[in-house]
Amino acid sequence: MRFRLKQPIALSFLRPPRATASFHSVSKQNSFGIAFDIDGVILGGKSPIGNSPIALKRLFHDSGALKIPFLFLTNGGGIPESRRAFELSELLGVNILPSQVLQGHSPFKNLLNRFENDLIVATGKGEPALVMSDYGFKRVISLDEYASYFVNLDPVAQYKRWTTLHESNGLKDFNELVSRSDLLSNKVQAAFVVSDPVDWGLDIQVLCDILTSGGLPGEKNGHQPPLYFAADDLQYQAAFPSERLGMGAFRIALESVFNSIHDKPLEYTSFGKPNPFVFQNAENILRNLLQASGPRNAIKETSNNELPSLKTLYMIGDNPLVDIKGAQQVHCIS
Amino acid sequence: MRFRLKQPIALSFLRPPRATASFHSVSKQNSFGIAFDIDGVILGGKSPIGNSPIALKRLFHDSGALKIPFLFLTNGGGIPESRRAFELSELLGVNILPSQVLQGHSPFKNLLNRFENDLIVATGKGEPALVMSDYGFKRVISLDEYASYFVNLDPVAQYKRWTTLHESNGLKDFNELVSRSDLLSNKVQAAFVVSDPVDWGLDIQVLCDILTSGGLPGEKNGHQPPLYFAADDLQYQAAFPSERLGMGAFRIALESVFNSIHDKPLEYTSFGKPNPFVFQNAENILRNLLQASGPRNAIKETSNNELPSLKTLYMIGDNPLVDIKGAQQVHCIS
Repeated sequence: MRFRLKQPIALSFLRPPRATASFHSVSKQNSFGIAFDIDGVILGGKSPIGNSPIALKRLFHDSGALKIPFLFLTNGGGIPESRRAFELSELLGVNILPSQVLQGHSPFKNLLNRFENDLIVATGKGEPALVMSDYGFKRVISLDEYASYFVNLDPVAQYKRWTTLHESNGLKDFNELVSRSDLLSNKVQAAFVVSDPVDWGLDIQVLCDILTSGGLPGEKNGHQPPLYFAADDLQYQAAFPSERLGMGAFRIALESVFNSIHDKPLEYTSFGKPNPFVFQNAENILRNLLQASGPRNAIKETSNNELPSLKTLYMIGDNPLVDIKGAQQVHCIS
Repeated sequence: MRFRLKQPIALSFLRPPRATASFHSVSKQNSFGIAFDIDGVILGGKSPIGNSPIALKRLFHDSGALKIPFLFLTNGGGIPESRRAFELSELLGVNILPSQVLQGHSPFKNLLNRFENDLIVATGKGEPALVMSDYGFKRVISLDEYASYFVNLDPVAQYKRWTTLHESNGLKDFNELVSRSDLLSNKVQAAFVVSDPVDWGLDIQVLCDILTSGGLPGEKNGHQPPLYFAADDLQYQAAFPSERLGMGAFRIALESVFNSIHDKPLEYTSFGKPNPFVFQNAENILRNLLQASGPRNAIKETSNNELPSLKTLYMIGDNPLVDIKGAQQVHCIS
């Protein structure tokens, strides 16, 4: 069993001035920002932990404007950031903006320029295709929906008696551009594991079919399309006494099977904590929040050079392997 | 893509006289027996392939008595041999005895002496607990049924909308001896993968829980209980154009995840073709069939020393990696 903190810990991280030319001098650095993990820190399941709502209220002015820039940094996901922000606002009694919610799959939106009009598949619990559609991807389909178009693809389908969730939004956007016959002849250009997979057997079978064939199940070997994971947590603490297998465990299972049936090793990219990119992205958003200083309509994208800098960024989490290690990889001062 | 025979091939195998003291001299060896693979050789799904029913009829006398000893040797399974024999008799129009059906999990019955009264879990498509109960195991429960007793064990259960199959026979035998409270305090003594797993995610989670804890999910690390697989096929040809992942792929996925979260590597035993034990067991049964020379009620267990020997045993299959390699491992003459 790996070590896990019983109490959330705050670790400050900051890129040293020399690390980037855009960084302001220390004399001008007079503020700080906070990145909170959600599960096990702010919420336990669907309930606030301790006095987290009261603590969060203190980060706002009485006017409701943001006093201290903060955001939520989680490897979880499966629903659009806008809906997650609404849920958090309801549960915590404060106004959380979509820009204050960074989920494991949030970095996927940065791949929009590359795959906006390409056929892509998305899998994981919740509504993975809706998440990608919300980012602007035009031809995304959930993996289980995609699999349903291929007869006999799943050899144990007859033993599964569940109804597949049809994601109206994602499917609507998808069907506007691709017919069923097109789907069976077009190659998938990329696969995204948006949240923790539910049907591991089907996901591993279909991903192996897509990735070994070059994008079309049943075809001969081809060049592997890109594969992206929202996170790489091996295990995580949930309601059960011992840790549960996470997306990292699924990645290990898929990789070991793929490498056993294919001549080239699996290539993939994982996001989520402790990936330093995630923390650097969090810093940029906190600097945007600091400049906007609260009012929702004041937030706008600004280049790093124009943004105010932060003296200290605090990461508050309960998992040394992703929260603390990640912050340390950016640069920590204890 | 691995090589697969387009037409079934017959390979003869025989243990040389020197290999065993019980083997009769060549001069007395004047008969032969046949072991048929089922899927892709005799049946394609639920339909006979070519003239297989006519060919099989020629192995019987007009009286219906067995003329040539033969049996079916498959890595498939998930239902008791008696039911599989009945299904084959219906599909092929000949009388198949349960003793003529060797499935991947058939060798599990040899473990009855060790686990007859122990709490064991069984998983895979079909009715794994019923199969084990039919062998005589008294306290067997299917893995999904077992998991349902542990609250919050499956972190993605809420995203699965299927009804769990309750195997009345297996469950009935089980509940006669163990109450729910006993189940939550007693350790599982062994785990059996009877047929191809359906819910890989749950199976891998629960098997990791049982095997890392020493037999009770949620407990601290303990000695790994024995784990048995009915077969180890990496892939197999089904109705889909490209091969589908088999039990061997599931074993690789489980092993890679287990070894990532546990300090000791996974220990397991795999049966099924090409395991030489399976072919040696087939030879013994064919020698029993030769002695019984047909009539159902004449078949009885006899020691190898008393059984007539067979000059040649033919394995007819379509998979070089399990049918042919297995026969060669016993001893082949082409």
